[in-house]
Parts: sequence; structure tokens; C-alpha cells
Amino acid sequence: MSLLHPQRLFPADPTTRAITQSLYDGIKHLPIVSPHGHTDPRWFADNEAFPNPSALLIQPDHYVFRMLFSQGIKLEDVGVKTRDGTPVETDPRRIWHVLAKNWMLFRGTPSRMWLDHVFAEVFGIDEILNTDSADAIYDHIAARLQTPEFLPRALFESFNIEVIATTESPIDSMQHHSKLANDAWQTAGGNKRVVTAYRPDPVVDPEFDGFIANLEKFGEMTGEDTFSWDGYLQAHRIRRAFFKQLGATSTDHGHPSARTADLSDAEIQSLFAVVTSGKASAAEAELFRAQMLTEMARMSIDDGLVMQIHPGSWRNHSDKMLARFGRDKGFDIPRGTEYTSALKPLLDKFGLDPRLSIILFTLDETSYSRELAPLAGVYPCLKLGPAWWFFDAPEGMRRFRELTTETAGFANTVGFNDDTRAFLSIPARHDVARRVDCSYLARLVAEHRITENEAHELAHDLTYRLAKNAYKL
Amino acid sequence: MSLLHPQRLFPADPTTRAITQSLYDGIKHLPIVSPHGHTDPRWFADNEAFPNPSALLIQPDHYVFRMLFSQGIKLEDVGVKTRDGTPVETDPRRIWHVLAKNWMLFRGTPSRMWLDHVFAEVFGIDEILNTDSADAIYDHIAARLQTPEFLPRALFESFNIEVIATTESPIDSMQHHSKLANDAWQTAGGNKRVVTAYRPDPVVDPEFDGFIANLEKFGEMTGEDTFSWDGYLQAHRIRRAFFKQLGATSTDHGHPSARTADLSDAEIQSLFAVVTSGKASAAEAELFRAQMLTEMARMSIDDGLVMQIHPGSWRNHSDKMLARFGRDKGFDIPRGTEYTSALKPLLDKFGLDPRLSIILFTLDETSYSRELAPLAGVYPCLKLGPAWWFFDAPEGMRRFRELTTETAGFANTVGFNDDTRAFLSIPARHDVARRVDCSYLARLVAEHRITENEAHELAHDLTYRLAKNAYKL
Amino acid sequence: MSLLHPQRLFPADPTTRAITQSLYDGIKHLPIVSPHGHTDPRWFADNEAFPNPSALLIQPDHYVFRMLFSQGIKLEDVGVKTRDGTPVETDPRRIWHVLAKNWMLFRGTPSRMWLDHVFAEVFGIDEILNTDSADAIYDHIAARLQTPEFLPRALFESFNIEVIATTESPIDSMQHHSKLANDAWQTAGGNKRVVTAYRPDPVVDPEFDGFIANLEKFGEMTGEDTFSWDGYLQAHRIRRAFFKQLGATSTDHGHPSARTADLSDAEIQSLFAVVTSGKASAAEAELFRAQMLTEMARMSIDDGLVMQIHPGSWRNHSDKMLARFGRDKGFDIPRGTEYTSALKPLLDKFGLDPRLSIILFTLDETSYSRELAPLAGVYPCLKLGPAWWFFDAPEGMRRFRELTTETAGFANTVGFNDDTRAFLSIPARHDVARRVDCSYLARLVAEHRITENEAHELAHDLTYRLAKNAYKL
Repeated sequence: MSLLHPQRLFPADPTTRAITQSLYDGIKHLPIVSPHGHTDPRWFADNEAFPNPSALLIQPDHYVFRMLFSQGIKLEDVGVKTRDGTPVETDPRRIWHVLAKNWMLFRGTPSRMWLDHVFAEVFGIDEILNTDSADAIYDHIAARLQTPEFLPRALFESFNIEVIATTESPIDSMQHHSKLANDAWQTAGGNKRVVTAYRPDPVVDPEFDGFIANLEKFGEMTGEDTFSWDGYLQAHRIRRAFFKQLGATSTDHGHPSARTADLSDAEIQSLFAVVTSGKASAAEAELFRAQMLTEMARMSIDDGLVMQIHPGSWRNHSDKMLARFGRDKGFDIPRGTEYTSALKPLLDKFGLDPRLSIILFTLDETSYSRELAPLAGVYPCLKLGPAWWFFDAPEGMRRFRELTTETAGFANTVGFNDDTRAFLSIPARHDVARRVDCSYLARLVAEHRITENEAHELAHDLTYRLAKNAYKL
Repeated sequence: MSLLHPQRLFPADPTTRAITQSLYDGIKHLPIVSPHGHTDPRWFADNEAFPNPSALLIQPDHYVFRMLFSQGIKLEDVGVKTRDGTPVETDPRRIWHVLAKNWMLFRGTPSRMWLDHVFAEVFGIDEILNTDSADAIYDHIAARLQTPEFLPRALFESFNIEVIATTESPIDSMQHHSKLANDAWQTAGGNKRVVTAYRPDPVVDPEFDGFIANLEKFGEMTGEDTFSWDGYLQAHRIRRAFFKQLGATSTDHGHPSARTADLSDAEIQSLFAVVTSGKASAAEAELFRAQMLTEMARMSIDDGLVMQIHPGSWRNHSDKMLARFGRDKGFDIPRGTEYTSALKPLLDKFGLDPRLSIILFTLDETSYSRELAPLAGVYPCLKLGPAWWFFDAPEGMRRFRELTTETAGFANTVGFNDDTRAFLSIPARHDVARRVDCSYLARLVAEHRITENEAHELAHDLTYRLAKNAYKL
Repeated sequence: MSLLHPQRLFPADPTTRAITQSLYDGIKHLPIVSPHGHTDPRWFADNEAFPNPSALLIQPDHYVFRMLFSQGIKLEDVGVKTRDGTPVETDPRRIWHVLAKNWMLFRGTPSRMWLDHVFAEVFGIDEILNTDSADAIYDHIAARLQTPEFLPRALFESFNIEVIATTESPIDSMQHHSKLANDAWQTAGGNKRVVTAYRPDPVVDPEFDGFIANLEKFGEMTGEDTFSWDGYLQAHRIRRAFFKQLGATSTDHGHPSARTADLSDAEIQSLFAVVTSGKASAAEAELFRAQMLTEMARMSIDDGLVMQIHPGSWRNHSDKMLARFGRDKGFDIPRGTEYTSALKPLLDKFGLDPRLSIILFTLDETSYSRELAPLAGVYPCLKLGPAWWFFDAPEGMRRFRELTTETAGFANTVGFNDDTRAFLSIPARHDVARRVDCSYLARLVAEHRITENEAHELAHDLTYRLAKNAYKL
């Protein structure tokens, strides 16, 4: 039996399913536009083979190892490195067996759907993963990874990716993007294929690990005095300009809240002095991040970079896990997130400027219909990012559409983001989004709320045009 | 092709659709009871022709122009008047073309559904609006508006409206309602056709524009000293009695929050002194509004007016838009709204009194199942208003039923409110509500959770009886 | 016509319905595991006949009388006892008629579904309750209740209950459980049939009625000085051990919030002194409850009892109703409940300990996808309790699965809890849960998201295995 049914994720009702099929057939072959994600630009710059199945599909995937951990499996046993160098499992085949043995835990989750897609569509596997099939599947994938067809650039092309954005910090060396800039492959498709995005959290968030050292490096890299407010802002402008040269069309801001501020110059100078002393309180750190969103908006008006705001995650919730394994280990937990009040200072300052574009994300689904759709449905600078992170899954995507469309329509949304480090899952994720969006549109058609012709146009918008336009790609 | 499919909004599953059709056939011809809305009583008092299609359908409809604005269209270009008299577009045909050109923005929104209904059912149009059809549709509507069949009273009758409530402030002259009181048309249907509702926000909310001047006018109109607490309360009683003469059966309270209070006399006197000095802080203003909900409940126990509480909107969110265009321009944004704690002072005071009836609304859907249904499912004075504002749309209405019925049943709800200034959309809005309610009931029947006979009775309740009873109409 | 359709609660779509039927057929006969509830252990210890239909089905059921009360029916008229001895209706037949006359109020509610199930399946009634049928139904049930087949133990067996947990306070005499411990019936099924659970709120919550007196009794029963911190903790250990002897495998904590704390010894000593003085402020009471969750977790690590946290209910919301009728009269109203921040102190202390198991419940559905699923999807000690209280109904259960599965999977959930005082409704409630879970799984199968074989395994897990494992039964 195949791992993937051709009509997976389509509604069961035959009428609606047939409409879904028709809509999906119209857009399934469109190129992938991936305007926000976390793939490693080195892959595309160096084009070296991926090492082995576990290093590719398990060890970097926090969706996978967090579920295993929740059921008592140690991260050490799936080869997640410790900070203090305590030994962890290094045999990729043994790591693979841990996944195979616990594969049933993923029933009903997007990880299962994405990995089945990778197995079936990328590697041509048709057996379900279990302890019996684990070795054969491992060997099959391991062998494929050593062939030219599975090098990063070949996959990029076979995945039909038109453009992909990675995310870098202002103090990143940008060596891989710089290398790509001089490589003919980068523009062989016409425009740039791999672009960056400006993610300044390490130099904007006073609570970020190593913030003061980051500021120092930021100063060295730009030749500015980043411990003076003017020099600090100028350093941002310099790096934003450089990121633009490397294809960036957007910035990204991963703050604990969506709070913005519009302080007086005197207040800012005073706050910046505290922040750069390394002694900011939690409230001062929050206020500084808030002010910086407004400053970033001001710069976006000047340089045209689209802002993305990704608020609401309590990063590294477990102190012990952070100490032992570091960031991004599945311990980022959402919290309630308010927008109506939080965004007002920025919106009062710049919200009606036609040059500004801000894409809002949330991990608090209650804000979709209560705040985000009403805000994006009237402020010309605001658009809604797609269902994010835990909600990048069929039910989450469906709720996003049901909760936002009636107030914000489709034109105030921006298509799909895969937002992933897991390169091989990119086609799977976009395919899920396309199937879910077509299912939603098909329901509107079946209920005579839009026509089928309109649905075909909208399917194309949601798959391709909105992302291209919103991200200026 | 017709703009409207006869089975629009019915579920796709054939069994459920057939049940929906049967339920809908049983109630579609019932008269419209419209107990809460914002139509202009002048229309019915003077019965003059509406000026032109844009003045009727675009310029007063914040749903329509907020969506256009969100996509970069200036309000000036659709003829929304500025406060400072800066010129705006005055040619109704050019305004109409702006809508026609951007009609695709409304796909999936209730505005599209309501306007298609107006086009098809009120004006007999069967072409979709676009730049090609814009002139013909404009001319067709413009011509119709000059015919006797399209005068306000003729439309009222052809819409099969039994009774409609408008909303007026205590300091309104009430000239149109007074004129209607002496017009035989007003009671030609038996009971009063057009009634008012008492909306005291301008004299209850210390943060309302011109609050002190409003209090002065309130005093002049009632002959009471509205700057003394006793005189102020007496002025309310006087105007409530007058509103009752003009058919009012309800009051309406549009506060930022649902907070209520039960202060001592000394506290009230002290708070009232601050409030009438025009120097109330935000917290004092909030506390005064809170106390006034309790005072209004006390008066409702005496005079029988049903209270409506509409909390949770941050009115006029954009300072610049308020300054330029004034209130009600699509910039009212919801916020999280709490009820369990907020209503306790009022409920502890009067919540068990059988003479009191309070209808609760929300712009925070999270409160449906968490607070509102549990509260209305036990307190005899509380009932749930229908899905409101941004949620007065098919998905919003469906969520309302799914989230409240299991805890509060149907009898603690009050039927539908159209809550609109857009007179021509009233049949469309009621029709959408009927279709969505029938679809919900049909699913309960199809899943054998109620019988079809029960569903027919409930469909009648939700369409007609609950509104008549809850609003004492 | 039968009151119950064999395919009730199954989705209408024929494909999905057929899959649901197949899944349901596979698990409908599995024994009932009831790990959390509020039945009276006296029933099973003494095995005496239930007195009459109203005393069994109306007077103790707050779901039933709160709905009646919300529509103006006095609790006195359905025989709910007053605290001051004011007379109430005592004729069970007249009470029964109140329900019959108002039966239509329950359309669409779970009470209706549960009672119809009791009528049809337990008593073999096939007439709908109304004023005409009321007497016949009353007589039929009353007669049955006097027969041996309707004694508590006979019903227990005919309901196919494998094990049921009741809930007792540390200062309960435990006489019924003690009596059961010496009765062969208790273990005739192999393991214990009726077990207790440790619910220490009366001696943990400084705001509980009679807290100081409760502490005194707690000291008397354990021989510990419960007004010293060490003695107080030791008293808990003693009673926990005794509850374990009586079959307890879990504790239960019904706090207003999910807040936890990890205070220093000095802070605890100081707080405990205030608390035991009877003068704790609301904030101090909250902090003490918070600290006690952490203390209870510490003890659970030692003795293996599974913790259940049931936060978010504002108990006895109406002061007047509490004064007149006492606790548990339908006036418990949910509030917004936060977990991510609230649980951090406990999780930082013990959250990675493999011996700890905590089951989280909520009355705030917004926390399902935002906080609870992300937390349970990574912390090995956390699992999600099923849809609770107002959400223990078809739509509520469906939302629970849709909002948690994609992030937490199925293995981080614990099957169903009936959580009821209404013994006769237990089969009905479990049957509803089984039908809703099978419907959800069937949709995943119909949409090719899991295979039918996987769904059969999962249906078994959700019905039986997860509850047995999570509660160590």
C-alpha cells in the first residue's frame, strides 16, 4: 500500500471532494515560493551531500524529538548534542530505530504526514516505518543521499522551488550567502534563488544570550559605535542594506510579545543607556524591544523591507533543558498574545504610510478573529501571516481560514510559509497547505458562497501570487 | 447565472442539505423582527427616496470601505466625508466604480453575500459586479430608487419587517420617532412598526466626545440638575419613560468592558463629583461606567426595559483616522473581554430578580463557551445575544451555536439581530442567519441528536419567537 | 420511535459514518474504566435501593437544575434543599413533572442525551418525556428501582464497569471505602472495583469553608501537629498512604488557577504561619495553594500517586445562592486560565522527573492549542485530561481532539473521565465519548490521514488503554 493517498486531506463529502480535486489539480504544479524559513544557506552554497538519514530527518527536527521526549525518550538517545559535551548516541542507525519503534506516537500529527511524504515522494518508499522496516528504509535513504540527485541544489530544483528565504542575524558573517552571490547557480532561474532575511533579535533583545557581546560584534562589523543610539541605528541601516544586496526583502522579529512603543528621544536615550549597561530589568528589556519594532518600521519605510512580527513564544521554557541542550529543543511554549493595544503606538506613528508592510503571526489562535483579522481588515500596512508553528497542520490551517476570511478576506493574507529547518519537508508542507486551502475553498463553492471560477483564482493566489507580492519576491 | 443559489449556505452533505432545506422552507417566509439596529428613523418618518446607489450602499457601510482601505484605497475616493471639509469624491458613479473594480476583495466575506442579495433580491440584478457591468448596475439601481416601490416604507413592507428598533441617545431630539408616533403608518400593522432603544453612552461614558456638554443638554431636556447624582438619575428615568412611549423595550450599552460595580452612596457621590468635573482618570471613567450598568439594571427592574450590553470594542483605534474622518469609520477593534468577574457586582445585586433581563454580546469568541454560556445557563436574568459585528457571518454564526448550545441551550439565546445601518441589507442578513441556523439544526438532526420535529420548532424559535419574547416586542 | 438512534452522533457523510460504525463496533463492548468521578461510595458499600426517580436523576444533578433555574424555575420547586431549612418541594412526583414540563429546554444539551440514554438503555423506555408521559415514566422507573437488578452493585455490573474512582477529602472518615475493603464484592472482579482519590482542597485551600477547623480535624485524624509545617506535610503523607490502601492511584486539585510556586523554606514557614492564623489575604491564599501543588508533586514522586489539576472554576459565583443552597448548585463559572507561566515553578523543580505524572484539565478551551498541547507535547510528566465539565459534550469533545492532537498526539492524553455524581449516566457519558472519538478518528481515516487499522488501535487506546495506563489502574 502506498504511504500517501492521492486524495489525502480532501473532505470526505463526494461533491466537495471533487471540487477540491479540481482546484488542487489547477495549482499542484506551481513553483514553491518559500519566503520565510530556517534552512541552512551552506547547503545551497556548498552543495554537499547530507550525511545520513538521522542527521537529516531526526536530530535537527524539534517537532520529532519533542514528541519522543514527551513520552520518556531521552534526547541523548536520539543524538541531540549536550552543551557540556556529555556523550550522546552517535550511531545514526540506532537513532533511526528509536524513531521507528515510536512511530505510532506521531499518528494524527503533521510530523507523520510530512515524513511519510518525504519517504514516499522524495525517496520512493512505500512501506510504513516500523522496527521491521527500519533498516531497509534507513539503508535506502542513506544510499540515495550519496547520489547526485540528492545533493541540495538538485533537490532544490526537483522540489520546484522558485525562491527560498533563510534567516540570519545582523552579526552573521553571511559567508554562505556571499558565496552564493558569486555562483551562477544562484541566478540560473532568472532571479535570485536563495535570499536572506534580517532577524535582528540577537542585537535587539536585551535578554538574548550574549546581548552585550553581540552589540560589540555588531559595532565591529559595521564600524559604528553601537553603544551610542545613533551609531546603533546606523549599524542596523548598514546591515539591512547589506542584507538587501544578498536578496533580503524582509525582516523578522521574534519577540515575546507584540508590544510596540513610541518613546521621546530623551526616553530612548535613557533607556538605551540602561540596556547597553547590561542591567536592563525585564520591563526595560520589553520596552526596548517595543521601541525597536517602531524603529524597524521606520527603517522599513525607508528601505522597503517587509516586516514580519512573530510574537508570543516563551522560548526555552525549561531552565534545565536550556542549560543542558541549548536553544530550540522543543521547549518553546506559547502564551496569550495581545495585539490591539500592543501595536497601537507603532500604528499611530506609521500605520497609514503606504510604504510600510507588516506581516503579523500568532501562536494564540484566539487573536485571529478577535484582533488580527479586524486589524488587517482595515490598516493598509497590516497583513496576516499563515498559521504558524504548532498550527502549521491541517486543523490549524483550516481554523486560520475559518477565523480570518470573513473579516479580512483573502487579499490581506500572504500565502504559505514553511518556516522550517527541515529542507526535505518543504514540498510536503507546501503540499499540505495547498490541499487544506483547496478544501476550504471547495467548501465555499459547495455551499455556493463563491463560484468555482473564483475558487480557482483564489487557489492560485493562496499558492503563489500572494506570497510573491506580499514579500516583494 | 444567478447571483444567488437557492441552496447557498446549506451543508454539502446531501442528507444534511435536504433536512436544511426542509427546515428553511418552514421559516423563510416568517416576518422579520429586528430588535437591535442602527437604521435612520428619518427614513421611515419622512419616506423620501434614497439619493443614489453609492450614498445608499457604499458611503455609510464601514464593512465595505474598511476592506477597500485595507488594500490601499483612500476613504476620500469613496466619498467618506472629512471633518475639516477637505474635498472628497462626490460623483456617486465614480465611487461606484471603485467598488466594482475591487469587488474581488470581498470574496468570502459577508459584505459580498449581503450585497449580492441586495442586487439579486431587491433590484433583480443577475450580473456579477465588475468594471464592465458597473454602469449598467448603477443605472438600474439609481432608476429603481426613484420609484415608489423603493421608498423606505414600501421597502419596509416588501421586506416583511414586522418591527424594527433604531438606537438613540438620551439627548437626541427624537423628532423622527415623535413624527412617526403621529403617523397612521406606524401602527397600520397592528403594533408599532418602528421603535427606539435607549443608548445612554454619550451621557454615561466620561470619555465620550463632549461628555460635559452632553450632560448639560441632558439637564436642559429633562429640567433636572444633571450635575447632581439624584438629578442625573432622575433625568435618566425621565428619558427612559419618554423612550418607552416611543416604543422602546430595551436599552443598549456599548462599553469598552463588561465591568460592573456596586459602590456605596458615599463612593458614588465622590466619583460623580470627579466625573462631572471633566477630570476623571481612565480608571475613574471605567468605574463610573461600571456603576452605571448597575444603576441601569436597577431602573430596568422598575420600568421593564431589557438591557443590552455590547462590550469589548476599542472604538476609533487610529487617532489620525478619528481626527480626519470621525467615529464609525471601520477602526473599531475588539479586545479580550472578561465577564465572570466583571458582571459579579451587578449579578450579586440584582442577578436573581425575575424582573431583570440582560442580553450579553461579545466580540471575544473565547467567552462564548468559557463564560457566557455558563453564566446564561444559570442566571435567570441573563441571555446571550447572537454573533455580533465581525461574527455576524456564516462561520461566526456557526461557531456561536456550536460553542453555546451544549451549555446554555437555545432558550437562553434571543434570535437574530441585524445591528445594521444598511437598511437594504436587512433581509439579506436575516436570511443568512436563518440559513445558518437551519444548517446547524439539520446537523443535529442528521446526527440524531434532536428529532426533525424538534428542529422545526427550534427553527421557528430562533427566527421569530425568541426575539419577540426576549425583547418584549 | 426509539429515543436513541443506533448511529447517533455519527457524522452524516456516508463514507465517514460507515468507518465510524466499524470503529465503534470494535470498542463499544469494552469495560468502563472510570478513573475520576464523584459517585457516592456508600452506594457500593451498602448496596441499598435508590429512593425514587427524582432523588436519583434530578435533585443531585446540577446540570439539570441549573438549566431549569436559568429559565426562572426555583430550585425549591425541584427539591434542592436550603441551608436554613426553608421548606422545599418534597413530593418526587411533582418534582418529576417540573422536569417533564420543561424538557424542551434541554434540546441540544448533553443532559438530554444522557437522560434519554438512561431512559432507553437502563429502564427500557421508548417514549419521549413530556407532561403526558411523565407519570408513566415516573412509575416505571420507580418500580424498577425497587428490584434487585437496579441495586447499585447490580447496575455497576450491568454497566460493565471495571473500576471506578470516587473522590474524598483527607478528613473524610472513609467509612464506605473501609467497609468495601472488607467486602468480597470489591475484588470479585480481580482487582479493586471501587477506589478513592485524594482531594485535599479542604485542607490546602485557605479560602475553603471551615479551613481552620478542617486543619484541626486533619491533625486529630493523623496524630500530627497540622499547625506546624512539618506536621502538616506529614499528615498529608499519612492520609495519602491510607488512601493508597483504599485503592487510590491519584490525587485531585481543584484550584481557582493553575499557579504553582517553589518558595524557600523561610518563605514557606512564614506563609504557613499566616495561613494557619486564618488571616491569609487572597494573594497569600493563592500563593499557598500554588506552593502546595509543588509539595503534592514532591509527594507524588515518592508515593506514585498521579496528580490531577482541575483549575479555572470560580466556585459559587452567586453569594446569595451559596448562602441559601450551599456549594455545587450550578453556580461554578469558568474563567480564563493560564498554564505556561503558572506551571513553570513546579516544572522547573520536578518536570523532568520520570516518576512524576500530572494530568491537566481546563475550563478554558483557548489553552488547548496554545498552552496545554505544547506543554504536554514535550514535558514527560504532563498529560492532557479529557474535555471537562461544560465541555464533556459532543462539540466540546470534538474541539478537544481537533485542538490538541496535531501538537500532543494521542499518547499524551488519558482517555475519558465521566466526572459525575450521576451514577446512572455513566454508561451514557462513556458511550458519547466513544462515539465522538470514533467519529473524529473516522474523519482522519476518510481524509487519509491515518489508516483504518491505526484508527482501530487508537479507538481501543482512547476507550480503555490510555485511562488504565495514565491512572495506573
